[in-house]
Amino acid sequence: MIVVMRHDATPDEVEAIRARLIDDGFRVHLSPGVERTIIGVIGENTERVYGVSAMAGVEQVVPVHRPYKLVSREFHPDPSVIHVGPVAVGGNRVVVMAGPCAVESREQVMEAAGVVNGLGLSVLRGGAYKPRTSPYSFQGMGVEGLKILAEARERYGLMIVTEAVDHESLRQVAEWADIVQVGARNMQNFELLKAVGQTAKPVLLKRGMSATIDEWLQAAEYIVAHGNPNVILCERGIRTYESKTRNTLDLSAIPVVKELSHLPIVIDPSHSTGHWNWVAPMARAAVAAGADGLIIEAHPDPSRALSDGPQSLNLPHLEELVHSLRTLAEVVGRTL
Amino acid sequence: MIVVMRHDATPDEVEAIRARLIDDGFRVHLSPGVERTIIGVIGENTERVYGVSAMAGVEQVVPVHRPYKLVSREFHPDPSVIHVGPVAVGGNRVVVMAGPCAVESREQVMEAAGVVNGLGLSVLRGGAYKPRTSPYSFQGMGVEGLKILAEARERYGLMIVTEAVDHESLRQVAEWADIVQVGARNMQNFELLKAVGQTAKPVLLKRGMSATIDEWLQAAEYIVAHGNPNVILCERGIRTYESKTRNTLDLSAIPVVKELSHLPIVIDPSHSTGHWNWVAPMARAAVAAGADGLIIEAHPDPSRALSDGPQSLNLPHLEELVHSLRTLAEVVGRTL
Amino acid sequence: MIVVMRHDATPDEVEAIRARLIDDGFRVHLSPGVERTIIGVIGENTERVYGVSAMAGVEQVVPVHRPYKLVSREFHPDPSVIHVGPVAVGGNRVVVMAGPCAVESREQVMEAAGVVNGLGLSVLRGGAYKPRTSPYSFQGMGVEGLKILAEARERYGLMIVTEAVDHESLRQVAEWADIVQVGARNMQNFELLKAVGQTAKPVLLKRGMSATIDEWLQAAEYIVAHGNPNVILCERGIRTYESKTRNTLDLSAIPVVKELSHLPIVIDPSHSTGHWNWVAPMARAAVAAGADGLIIEAHPDPSRALSDGPQSLNLPHLEELVHSLRTLAEVVGRTL
Amino acid sequence: MIVVMRHDATPDEVEAIRARLIDDGFRVHLSPGVERTIIGVIGENTERVYGVSAMAGVEQVVPVHRPYKLVSREFHPDPSVIHVGPVAVGGNRVVVMAGPCAVESREQVMEAAGVVNGLGLSVLRGGAYKPRTSPYSFQGMGVEGLKILAEARERYGLMIVTEAVDHESLRQVAEWADIVQVGARNMQNFELLKAVGQTAKPVLLKRGMSATIDEWLQAAEYIVAHGNPNVILCERGIRTYESKTRNTLDLSAIPVVKELSHLPIVIDPSHSTGHWNWVAPMARAAVAAGADGLIIEAHPDPSRALSDGPQSLNLPHLEELVHSLRTLAEVVGRTL
Repeated sequence: MIVVMRHDATPDEVEAIRARLIDDGFRVHLSPGVERTIIGVIGENTERVYGVSAMAGVEQVVPVHRPYKLVSREFHPDPSVIHVGPVAVGGNRVVVMAGPCAVESREQVMEAAGVVNGLGLSVLRGGAYKPRTSPYSFQGMGVEGLKILAEARERYGLMIVTEAVDHESLRQVAEWADIVQVGARNMQNFELLKAVGQTAKPVLLKRGMSATIDEWLQAAEYIVAHGNPNVILCERGIRTYESKTRNTLDLSAIPVVKELSHLPIVIDPSHSTGHWNWVAPMARAAVAAGADGLIIEAHPDPSRALSDGPQSLNLPHLEELVHSLRTLAEVVGRTL
Repeated sequence: MIVVMRHDATPDEVEAIRARLIDDGFRVHLSPGVERTIIGVIGENTERVYGVSAMAGVEQVVPVHRPYKLVSREFHPDPSVIHVGPVAVGGNRVVVMAGPCAVESREQVMEAAGVVNGLGLSVLRGGAYKPRTSPYSFQGMGVEGLKILAEARERYGLMIVTEAVDHESLRQVAEWADIVQVGARNMQNFELLKAVGQTAKPVLLKRGMSATIDEWLQAAEYIVAHGNPNVILCERGIRTYESKTRNTLDLSAIPVVKELSHLPIVIDPSHSTGHWNWVAPMARAAVAAGADGLIIEAHPDPSRALSDGPQSLNLPHLEELVHSLRTLAEVVGRTL
Repeated sequence: MIVVMRHDATPDEVEAIRARLIDDGFRVHLSPGVERTIIGVIGENTERVYGVSAMAGVEQVVPVHRPYKLVSREFHPDPSVIHVGPVAVGGNRVVVMAGPCAVESREQVMEAAGVVNGLGLSVLRGGAYKPRTSPYSFQGMGVEGLKILAEARERYGLMIVTEAVDHESLRQVAEWADIVQVGARNMQNFELLKAVGQTAKPVLLKRGMSATIDEWLQAAEYIVAHGNPNVILCERGIRTYESKTRNTLDLSAIPVVKELSHLPIVIDPSHSTGHWNWVAPMARAAVAAGADGLIIEAHPDPSRALSDGPQSLNLPHLEELVHSLRTLAEVVGRTL
Repeated sequence: MIVVMRHDATPDEVEAIRARLIDDGFRVHLSPGVERTIIGVIGENTERVYGVSAMAGVEQVVPVHRPYKLVSREFHPDPSVIHVGPVAVGGNRVVVMAGPCAVESREQVMEAAGVVNGLGLSVLRGGAYKPRTSPYSFQGMGVEGLKILAEARERYGLMIVTEAVDHESLRQVAEWADIVQVGARNMQNFELLKAVGQTAKPVLLKRGMSATIDEWLQAAEYIVAHGNPNVILCERGIRTYESKTRNTLDLSAIPVVKELSHLPIVIDPSHSTGHWNWVAPMARAAVAAGADGLIIEAHPDPSRALSDGPQSLNLPHLEELVHSLRTLAEVVGRTL
């Protein structure tokens, strides 16, 4: 940490900070500058240094260390590959996960699963527990939905990714599915993160709607620190002032995350754009930028979807997109 | 709802939308304009109308109804007063809640509680369960912390507000405290909202860091719809691009919320500014703008605080602020 | 400046940075830490240090100096008072500027000016050159408008504040008006800032819609550095994701600016909220937070205004607001 | 336009709005709903309808028409191709513009131009007039810089794109260069837009740092409405809360703009990311998403650049990127 003193800090104030930091067990380095004194602070648990902001003469405390460890490249220089049954996320293959926003019926899931399988994809998405902004919106089929997904897995050999929203749904999802999704709204639901960290299932951790990349990686750190190293990051659009799209897809997060962390990152072009006709260009852009996978909403009849119809591809459009992604993946040295 | 057709929508496309909406049980009103046709849609569960966005010829679906009901002024024109023991939030008195960010020790809480009580305030704040961005930060004292708060209530007759972060902590908080706080990061933890809705305790619902006012009121609607009408809204700063302050305090939310909803609103000038020296002007501004209360972090020794020291007032500064607020409240026709 | 090296920077990389900085005339201070080396850099024109970001082994360059000088408290510890004829902005009196968004006719301006004068206010606002988002919107009356404003000054002894949008309009505004307004959209029109810096007129510098406080103060620095020290800052709402209000009024900017700079700050509650019925509470909040003034849109018939009608107070509402502000100002130790 | 009345609007209030709108020459369509009345308004200059927001009983005025015309797909369904000498922007070829942020010397420009030409690119970028946030930063070489660029054009047959910042620099740029750049900070400098509209030169219009897509297209409309149809849009990152990148590159703007407008769109991956090592993945993503071009900062020695060194590619990295873009462009059916 670096403590920057005010330009008018007195020698006594500087000394008080120095003494306090030493008293707290830190080593300190004073750099008296022309305009202000800078104090470098070295030691463990440097978070405690922030407290001196409340003392006289301090202008700001500047962190220089990364606020996470286990998920960082510094700790683990090689990229992690997360294994989900036969599927490897973070390897050479770009993994496309597709399916409806919400599980609505056996027929709907089976129809989507058939197409997903026919396209050679290996992960089926579909929500059984739906965190909805309004209490009057469809809240999901719960365990019944999970059983339908499990049946699709059985029939088509697909891996299942689906969201858990609390301890109880996590117990069920961990039993019936292959990847536990933590939704954007729960990215800082730390009790859920801890619980997910205690399961053995791979986790798809969506970025919170206004989470910084540092906060997102700290959320991943919660899961890893509680015992589960199998975290897949998922960028799904951030909240900005622009309202043409539902959110603003932050594709720059791909190279940034790859520099900071060893965890794989997949992109959700459906929630971010909010419109099915903008999904395909953003999916292609994600692959070109180096994404390890995509998670795409597709529905047999989007206009009848109980959730997120406007942003769902119909199944022929999904097929068309997957074909175009295949050629693209090759050009950037991957397969799909 | 209003469906706005594309300028080049064909008569067949318009007819298909009309037929589909009637088929779904809505009444429709066509207004063919010079540039595009507008379809007014009347009926129940208009949320289903969004699905037509996926049909040909539709440009956008514009909602005209409020997405919440029980918390709206339309439903309940008079302001609600929430009773917390002898304290009324939303009445003439501006209710100031003060205390440390986190419960750290019996001594710390008792010292703060003594000052809070001595200033004639009636609600003590203090976190026993701390949702922290980093897994390595102090996570709170848990039930031990709640017992310390309960002791302060006993000794000083103060009401206690403290945060619950999941089902289990909610059970404890509902037992030991007087107001259950739902934190900004959990504003869209809908399972927690439902559970809080099933308790009888007043709830302090913080606005999510990037929640719109509509989403915040829908979160309140969750609680009320599940049985608990005693919701106090709390604005605590929203995330913007400006980084001098920790967040940007959105004081305009006061008149906006008062126009849309009957629920009381309190302001947190501590988390929003992130610096103790900016807390007092923002507290004064909040009262001048019509806030029903304030929640302020104060600590016997901010530089030693285990959480949020830089934004905590020391106790003499709290005293000074409360005195200035008292005169100010009178000028705007309130007491404190 | 502080250069933070990567955790895996080699000794050679550190040395290359050190040598380069010394070669560029800086003094450097190395602090080898447990996790990474930190290099303190002292000297003139430290902006050049940013270049080393492009060299191997550098993680980030952290500025520790303020990016402005003449407008800072460090340079000029006492608050500046800007004199506009008989009016002092930044002194004990809270200066209220009021009038229509745009000059539309002689009658409209005279009616507004009469009320403004009758309320004991001393500055009339009104736009003759209107920067409008659409090329098809009313673009202002130009010099004709300025002459109408000058007539109102003559008749009522009011000072005039009005916007300049380029060199030519600046020439005219400087001739006919008392305060030159630089609008939010021109806050980083540096050529205009330089030209304004070469006039002798007081300047009202609006904060850009997404300008940080640092960028705003640097814009002020442009004006002062080019010769004109008479800058009044004006916060008018920043762009955020919240859409209920036109912009989000950042009242925290008041204490922040007062800590960083000696320049006075006034608040525009009209453009920020965008709704006339939210103007009064925000005006009161601004005064309570320590604003040096307000600039408020008021119109004889807002529903007929050619610009910004929805956010304009009618004249009776203006009167009501001014009365309430008077009592409030006294409580915070000011007059109005 | 649609006027949505409040749920408690009286019949008299509805009638007053209706009468006022008819009086103003509009045709109106009343849809009395269960919860509130909706008034469809048809006619010319519908912007005037906003005024009724100031009348009793009105909840909101919802626009349904696009706020621009000449730049819209409705007006001009086929994509526009802008011709810059022998270069066509908006056609099948992805046009890559590259060069230093600022013109610093003849040698620097010639070295960069040689590489740009050697790579088969046809547009050289370089700023002679630099709008800088700080008055103390390098402000550009002015006309001298333009002459150096013109010499590079002469020698290598490259087209030149460079920024104009006011009337005078515009006159010079229009004389010496091939494309006039309007920078992000001037996107709503409407006087500059009008002046640019009166030249015959192609214009590169950068999106403002916090401009919505609608505002950006309205800025383009200014230029076209004043006589110059040759506008190339340029997305360069928008301001959000995320600070790892300098701005957040909004690649979704590509499909959105292509749906709304016939103008070509190019992407600036340098200013948006702010770090040279994230430029290549974002450039590739832009091409995959359908961008018509790229504008990339490249410098013979980024660490010595007087402006934006950290985000500039060195010349070998530029070469590497261009090669990878060539293969990618083919896969999406374009050339480069």
